[in-house]
Order: sequence, then C-alpha cells, then structure tokens
Amino acid sequence: MNTRQLTELAQQLRVDSVRASAAAGSGHPTSSMSAADLMAVLLANHMRYDFDRPAHPGNDRFVLSKGHASPLLYAAYKAAGAINDTELLTFRRLDSRLEGHPTPRRLPWVETATGSLGQGLPVGVGIALAGKRLDRTGYRVWVLCGDSELAEGSVWEAAEHAGYEHLDNLTAIVDVNRLGQRGPTRHGHDLKAYARRFQAFGWHTVEIDGHDIDAVDRAFDEALSTAGPTAILARTLKGKGVASVQDREGLHGKPLPDPEEAIAELGGVRDVRVEVHHPPAARLLHSVEARRADLPRYEIGDEVATRDAYGKALAAVGTARGNVVALDGEVSDSTRSEFFAKEHPDRFFECYIAEQQLVASSVGMATRGWVPYASTFAAFLTRAYDFVRMASISGAGINLVGSHAGVSIGQDGPSQMGLEDLAMFRAVYGSTVLYPCDANQTAQLVAEMAGLEGIRYLRTSRGGTPVIYSATEEFPIGGSKVLRASGEDRLTVVAAGVTLHEALAAAELLDREGIPVRVIDLYSVKPVDRRTLHEAAESTGCLLTVEDHREEGGIGDAVLDAFADGRPVPRLVRLAVRTMPGSASPAEQLHAAGIDAETIAAAARLLVETAVVR
Amino acid sequence: MNTRQLTELAQQLRVDSVRASAAAGSGHPTSSMSAADLMAVLLANHMRYDFDRPAHPGNDRFVLSKGHASPLLYAAYKAAGAINDTELLTFRRLDSRLEGHPTPRRLPWVETATGSLGQGLPVGVGIALAGKRLDRTGYRVWVLCGDSELAEGSVWEAAEHAGYEHLDNLTAIVDVNRLGQRGPTRHGHDLKAYARRFQAFGWHTVEIDGHDIDAVDRAFDEALSTAGPTAILARTLKGKGVASVQDREGLHGKPLPDPEEAIAELGGVRDVRVEVHHPPAARLLHSVEARRADLPRYEIGDEVATRDAYGKALAAVGTARGNVVALDGEVSDSTRSEFFAKEHPDRFFECYIAEQQLVASSVGMATRGWVPYASTFAAFLTRAYDFVRMASISGAGINLVGSHAGVSIGQDGPSQMGLEDLAMFRAVYGSTVLYPCDANQTAQLVAEMAGLEGIRYLRTSRGGTPVIYSATEEFPIGGSKVLRASGEDRLTVVAAGVTLHEALAAAELLDREGIPVRVIDLYSVKPVDRRTLHEAAESTGCLLTVEDHREEGGIGDAVLDAFADGRPVPRLVRLAVRTMPGSASPAEQLHAAGIDAETIAAAARLLVETAVVR
Repeated sequence: MNTRQLTELAQQLRVDSVRASAAAGSGHPTSSMSAADLMAVLLANHMRYDFDRPAHPGNDRFVLSKGHASPLLYAAYKAAGAINDTELLTFRRLDSRLEGHPTPRRLPWVETATGSLGQGLPVGVGIALAGKRLDRTGYRVWVLCGDSELAEGSVWEAAEHAGYEHLDNLTAIVDVNRLGQRGPTRHGHDLKAYARRFQAFGWHTVEIDGHDIDAVDRAFDEALSTAGPTAILARTLKGKGVASVQDREGLHGKPLPDPEEAIAELGGVRDVRVEVHHPPAARLLHSVEARRADLPRYEIGDEVATRDAYGKALAAVGTARGNVVALDGEVSDSTRSEFFAKEHPDRFFECYIAEQQLVASSVGMATRGWVPYASTFAAFLTRAYDFVRMASISGAGINLVGSHAGVSIGQDGPSQMGLEDLAMFRAVYGSTVLYPCDANQTAQLVAEMAGLEGIRYLRTSRGGTPVIYSATEEFPIGGSKVLRASGEDRLTVVAAGVTLHEALAAAELLDREGIPVRVIDLYSVKPVDRRTLHEAAESTGCLLTVEDHREEGGIGDAVLDAFADGRPVPRLVRLAVRTMPGSASPAEQLHAAGIDAETIAAAARLLVETAVVR
Repeated sequence: MNTRQLTELAQQLRVDSVRASAAAGSGHPTSSMSAADLMAVLLANHMRYDFDRPAHPGNDRFVLSKGHASPLLYAAYKAAGAINDTELLTFRRLDSRLEGHPTPRRLPWVETATGSLGQGLPVGVGIALAGKRLDRTGYRVWVLCGDSELAEGSVWEAAEHAGYEHLDNLTAIVDVNRLGQRGPTRHGHDLKAYARRFQAFGWHTVEIDGHDIDAVDRAFDEALSTAGPTAILARTLKGKGVASVQDREGLHGKPLPDPEEAIAELGGVRDVRVEVHHPPAARLLHSVEARRADLPRYEIGDEVATRDAYGKALAAVGTARGNVVALDGEVSDSTRSEFFAKEHPDRFFECYIAEQQLVASSVGMATRGWVPYASTFAAFLTRAYDFVRMASISGAGINLVGSHAGVSIGQDGPSQMGLEDLAMFRAVYGSTVLYPCDANQTAQLVAEMAGLEGIRYLRTSRGGTPVIYSATEEFPIGGSKVLRASGEDRLTVVAAGVTLHEALAAAELLDREGIPVRVIDLYSVKPVDRRTLHEAAESTGCLLTVEDHREEGGIGDAVLDAFADGRPVPRLVRLAVRTMPGSASPAEQLHAAGIDAETIAAAARLLVETAVVR
C-alpha cells in the first residue's frame, strides 16, 4: 500500500477502535489510536500471514503485548477480512470472541493471551527462539509493546535473552505515547532513554515519529535487515487524531466522550480492505509422531532421587518424541535436565537465572506446537506465577518441573525450599499437579505429562528415596495407589513424594503396635482420586494427611476437595510444615516440621484413641 | 586499614569461609572467596556500622544479594567481633543462627533474607529510598551481587528505579566471577557488557580488578562521590586463592575437597579483628506514635466500592500514624491509593508497572521501621510471589493490597481478574488474609492491619457494594460475622466480599420459600474463625461456601481448615470460579461463574433436599 492508502487504513483502524469501544461502553480506544499507524503499515506492507490458515508454519507471528489495545487488533482483523463489522461491535460482550484482552482460546490468530503487561515480549522471544532454532521456516515475530510496560523487569529479561541469542527474526515495536494509566511514564517521549537500554542489551534500535507513515514503513524494512533483534521506538500521541482526547491525561481505558464527533473528525467510517501478504510455502520440521518412550527402569529397593529420574526420563521422552524441548533456569545440574541437554542439545534451551523468561519461552514454543518441559527449583517457579497464570488463560500446554521441594532439601534453608508450589499450581485453571515418590513412578509420569492439556506441574525431590514400584506399574493421571490396606484399618494416611516413605515407615511402626493403617500414595494431587479417598474414608473413618508443604493448598486441601460435594466428611488431621525452617539435615528438617514417621505414628495413635473415646 | 592489613583480612575471610563450609559439609566457599577482597575493604574502610546497635538509625546497610555466599558474611561478622569462632563453625547446623542463606529472623545484622537471586538489589533500592526520602540520616546502602543474578529482570527493575530516583546512597558491588552454578555466565568477564546495561539505566559504573585491594578501595571512594547510584563491576575469580578450585567449573556449592591444604595455601588461620567505623549520631525522623485513625464513616445502604474505602481509610491511617507509607504500581487511580498520595505526597512512592520492585521497596522500607501499604491489581501481585515468599522468610511486616479481585470486575476479562490471590497469600507462612465486603469494614481492617506482624493481605473489589455495617462495628482479625441466624437454619452459607451480598440475597429468597439459612461473613480468611464455623456446622449440619476465586486455596479451603483437627466434618459444598471467564458485565460474570444469588439459592435447595432424603 502507498502512503495515502496506509493513511486511510490507519484512520479506519482508529475509527473502528472508537466504534468498538463505544459499542462496548468500555475499552481502550486512546491506547489503540496511538499505535494505529504502526499497525496499518505492518499489516499492509510487512506481515506475511494467511488468516485462513492461522496454523500455517510460515506465518509471521504478531503479539499485542499491550493487550488492552485490543480494539486496534480487532479493527485490524476486520480490515484483513478475518471478522466482519457486526462481530467487531460485539467487543467485550458475553460470549463474544472479542474479549477485553485478546486470548487464543477464542481467536485463532492470537498467539498468546496478553493483558498482564510485560509478558508479550518475553513470549515473543520464545516464539522467535522456536523460529530460529527449531522451526526454521523463516517467520518473523512482531511484538507491539507499550512504553509503560518497559518498567517491568520481565521486558529486560527478554531483551537480554533476545540480544544474546541474536534473534534477528524478532522486532519489538514500542508505542511510546508517553502516557500510562495513571499519568505520564518515567521517560515521556525521550526515545533515547529507551534506545540506550535496548542497545545495552544488544539490540538494534530505530527511532521514529510513529505517525509518519513513510518513516514507519522504512523502520520495518530496516528491522528486517539487521543481524539481531530490533526495537522500533515510535514517538506517538495517545488518542491521536481526535483533539479532545489527544495526548491528554486521565483518559486511559475509557471510551471517547463523543464517539460520533470523533469519528467525523477522523474522516468517518471507511471500508478499506487489506490483502495481507501470504507467507511462502513452508513445512513443519518437527515430527509429530509420538513413539512410546523407552524409559529407564529401576529395581525395587534402589535409592534414587526423583529429580534424577526426571532428567533421565525426559531424555528418553525426547528420543521418542521429536517435538519435546527442555528449558532450564541455569540449574540443570540440580534439576537434572542436564541429561536431556546431553542427549538432545539442539532441543535444550539454557535460560540462565530468569524464571519469567523460562516460562515465557515455554509458552512461546508451545504456541508453535512444541512440547516444552521447563525446570528450576520449585521455590523459584514462584517468580513466574503471573506467567503461569497468563499461560493458563492462553490455554498453553506446558510442563513445569520444580525440584528441591520442601524442607527435606536440608541445609540450604527456607529460601531454596518449595513450600507453596502445590498451592500455587493447584489454584491455576485446568492444571495438573503431580508429585511422585519414586523413580519408576517419576519416569511414567514424565512420559504421561507430554500428552496432557494445559499447565502440568511435576514436583521432584532432592534426596534419594527407595524405589517401591516396579517399572511396569502404571500411574494414570487422577489416580492414586493404595500401598497398605486391610479390613481392619483404623485410619488412612495419605501422602506423596518424600512423606509417602515416612508414612510407610509409620505404618510399619503402628502395625507392630497392633494399629493397622491404610496408606495411600496421592501422586496425582490434581486431579485427585476421589473414589479411592471416599472408600478409605468409609472403611477407616479417619484420614491423616502428611506433606512437605505448607498446610494451605497442598495435599491436605486436595484430600478435602474430594469431600466438598455435600457428602459427610470423615475426621481429618493434616500434618504439614507449620514453622519457618532454618538449616539442618534432611532428617532433622522432617522431624522439626513434624512430618516424619515418628510424628505420623504419634498423630495416628492420638486419632485412633480419640476415636475409641468417642 | 592499609593494603597489607586488608590483604590479610581478605585471606582470613577466605580461610574462615573454607573452614565454616568444611565444618558444615556443605555451603558455598568458592562463591565466598571471589568476593573476599571486596568484603574486606568495604568492612574495614567504608562501612559505618555499630554491631552492638544494629538498629542505630545512622548505620549503613549491607545486603548480601548473593545469599549463598553466607560463609563470607559470617566470616566478616567474626572479623568484626559480632560472632566468635565457635559460632562460625556451627554454620548450617540445626538451631544455628548461621543458616545456609542469611535471614534477619535469626541475625540482627542481616537486613533481609536472600537466597532467591535477584532480590537483594531491589530490596536495597527500597532501603536506599527510605534513606533518601524518609529517614534522611545519611546512611549508605551496599549491595553485594553475583554476576549470574543479573539475568533476573528484577535486577533491571531495580536499576531503573534507582537510576530514576538518583539514589546516590546506593552502591551495587558486582562480584563478576564469571561462573554460575551450572557453568559460565552469559557474559563471562566482560565487565563492559554489565557497564553498558547499568549506564543505560542511569548508573555510574566503575570497572576494577576485584582482587586489587587498592583499586577496590578507590572504587568505594568513587562510589561515594557520584550523583546517582554506582555499580562497582569487579572482575574476580571464583575460589580465588586456592589453585585446585580457582576459576574452575563444577565446584559451585561444594566444600573444598581438601580444606586443610586450602587453608595452608591461603596462609593459615588468622585472627585479624576489624574495628568497623561507627556511624555519626542520628535520630529517627518518623514518629512511632500511633494515634487512633479518624476513619471515614459510611451510612448503611450507601453503595461504595471497597477499593474506594481502602484509599480513603489509608489516607486517614497515614494522618494518624507518621510511619505509614504507601506504594503503588502505576494504578493508584484504580486501587485508590491516590487518596493517600494526595494527602501525604512525601510518603507516597510511585513504583510504575514493576510489581517485584513494588514489593521489594516495601520490604526495604519495612526494614527501616516504616509501615508500608503496597497496592496494585490482585492479579498482578502474582508477579511478585517470590518476593512475598522471601519477605515472609525475612519476617518483614508489610501490607499488600490487591484490587479488582475476581470475575466481578466484568468486561476487562481474565487477565485482570485476581482469582488465585487468596490461595497464594494463604500459603505464605504467618500471613493474614482479609477480604472485606463493605466500606466500614474495609476502613476498620485497613487500620487494624498496621499493627499486625508479617505479610498482611487485603483483597478489594472494583464495583460498589452496599454498606451493611455501622461505622462503629469492630472486626477483629480471626473473627467473622454471623449476619443471619435462627434456631431453624437448615444450612450455613459462608462468603466474603462480593459474594457475601449474593449470599444475603440468596438467604432472602430462601427465607421466602421457608428455608431459613445462616449467613457468615468470613472477612478474616486467615486466620479463620474456627469457633463460629464449628457452631454453625453443629447447628445447621451443612455448609455452603461461595467465593469469587478459584475453588482451590480460597474461602472454601479456609472453612475446611477449621475442621482439619480430627473433629467430624459437616457436609460441605463449595461454589467457586471453575471456568475460564471471558468479557461480560459484572452481573453476567457472577452468574456465568455460578456464584450469584440465584445459583447459591439453587445449591442450597439441593443440599437441603438431599439432607431430607438422607
């Protein structure tokens, strides 16, 4: 398109942003209007995208990091013929595909859910990494950022990552409209301030007037010719084109006061159609074939850490499935993803100590059909909780693996102990939460995870635990294992991971005292095996849960969940980490936290006696 | 101290790091040895600190951001006479004050718990802000960082904040030993790579050989004379001084293989004592006097959003208590902390869109005796979960306030909805979780929070809700309110916040149908009012919880908690957000999620009927 046509298109995008927001009675037209020229030029002259085939392997990828500017995105979809005007005006209504912030759950052209600022660029980096190192179909990744969101550290994690990896297929377009929600940004229209920062991280930068169509056009051309990632820093005006709102404070996230007048001022409603360039033919490199993994097998009685079993199983899963990739936060020697890295170096991604980017890269790769396993200490996945939350909104299929769970890590102390991870992941929509206790179980679950939907979390332990299951045992998601049971059981101990072994030892102790107890291995913390828990409750009348986790949100709550359907609930006691641990040996930690065999046995005796009294 | 003495001191710090780690059988001696010269010069020649009076208002503040180098810190404490050699050798033992990673819970000279990398500098920024804008007693803040942790985005959030605020009292000392845990860092010994980044964010930088005592000494002098924050970039060698480990990979976090030989190579055990310079006399500026706040009062029946009530109450609390400060993540017009900002601009801190720094600044200010209230959308506090977790390890007293909770925000969609926040905060050690339903209750709780310990979380709502409590009603932490009760109640509905009003409406409906139900306002989600819940369970036999939150970890689980002590549990059903919402009006959202009055009434009918059947 030529300058005149592009100018018309940009005005149409503004008009349609105003119209959509007016129809909704809410939304962010002014944040859309600042970026309309950038979007018009990108869409008409630089994007290569087949709207009829959003999964086309050669399609460029566009991420609206400033997700609140969704009216602009939907206006662009209309201009490209992907949606019609009627649908545009359903913006923000119940059951409309056009949500306040775009999500790929509803719209096939959206790569990732945005709306939590500072996440679009990190996910874009993940897509660009997939493009350069995995897919190699030549697509480009365009990320439209706001200036406000550059205050997020995650943006600079992404900048560091992209600069280091020389992601020349990545372009960040920063809509520097100088106004945040509450007021002016730190740097206003000082493009140089942003340029210095991006350059320091190894990016090429271009500074332009974001309303100069020709300058914008040249900037996109320049972005394609550089050896690394490019940031186009565009000076713009919020609300551009309508004098009553242009460059004014206090108008963030509000429909224009007089939309009809604004539309007139913008030259009225248009119907410019863009023929977006299609990408060249391309085909997926990765094999979607999924063979059954030849998993390592462990002998019953062997002492193996579940983190070791994780790393080795992942390497085997990687061999069986060509679309599995692994990422790690500079602790692959601890999480044991190093086993995968050694066998499949081309599919291993070192993310250094940057957990937000670790998760964001996983999300980005998942959008391209890869099956990522991202690992770090369970404790440090808390760093990326907002990214996990947004990944669940995206419907992204990613595997997250947290090692060094709980007080049982020992001397390193509380900063390294994952004690909130089960609560955190259980609360995520549609998540699966797994917590194996032995090496064979771990291996099976690692293989199983690859085929699940949504956020899958696996919790591993630092120290060795005895193998108690045979290598042929199966562990369905949503299942559990009853490891001890008799008709005489006085109560049921429910545990998983490290504490499962403590529960078994306690059961031995109690058995010798004439108190038979049932033991359930709750390896699938979410979804939870309701039926087995109901049976145990009915036959033993009393449940004792024990977990190397805080008392809120973990195994105890997962067990209670099974009874929150109106049925009478058995008596229940939870053993969990209620104190703030310091440094000590793993055994001392378990004892101090009151989750070792001795404490379990003591609690069981008390419960059984009380039952007798009643 | 002169060069020779400093050299001796540095060698002693190395020797003691080796000895402590050898005695513990774990720890990070090599990461300590690289920074020994930096620490020796700082301690002997530049720090102003009175170890006998750690609370001295004039004391400089030292943060060991690379917390795993704790042997170095403890060796420095010994050299300063704060601990003796016997205690040094208790490192990492059960009940020792010398944990694997330092925490202020145990040691009075530690400012903040570290061990999750990339948090020391952000907290240091908070302390430096307190120093410059609040305390003004002239102290300096020294933060010893590792090079690996500069990959964390939080470091650049902090750098941005410090540069913008011209924090000339802040010095980051980066121990560039080129080796992370797993292997080399991205930039190795390329000091310029780090210098470019810090400079871009407005810092002064000094590049030195970190083992050149005189150069280190001059760098600290230079840091004191600049107009903004300074980063000293020191080229060092991991394991410096012991040939078998120096600058070698694969030795992170391991005691030296032959400690005796290493000690000999380092010149043997010494007993150099440092007389650390004391700070000049200083006194606290802020008043610790806490008057009773003159809180706004609302009339029963008024429609007021709890976020509005929060902002207004906070302004009043700020007037009554001179040590209250407020911080916000660039959404003060939404969270309504703008009311505080207007009345107390000198105690309001704009953190822009940087939630990690928002929480870190709060933690830093809390270390100096200030009582921070930090607010953003509840959803975006997930961004700072690792900081909250570490704050709880620190024992920091901070108030965090999340607005726009739940689906009831309406059209903006899931990215803006806090739906995991209750789970997240409940799982934090020692936390208090509050969720008011009306303006008078909000005001009382905001005032109450100031006097609590640990992490306090308040959840507020976007839309207006009717005032149901009088302005004189009191709301003790750990309490609840029974809003409807009779001897005939067939079940109890437990709710809080937005859903409390739905519960009351449902109770009206049911009452007209001849089904009397009890309604409990569970405004204190943690700690939970066990007694009232037990009474309700006993007299109504059946509980129905309803919350604008995911079903895991929120109000339902809090209620179950009250029964996890071995007592028989009543029948319980939970209504919570089980779907992924899109955009819709607040009322539509509540209905779609199944947490509105109509659904509550339907669930209640079903429960009551089932009870009859049984």
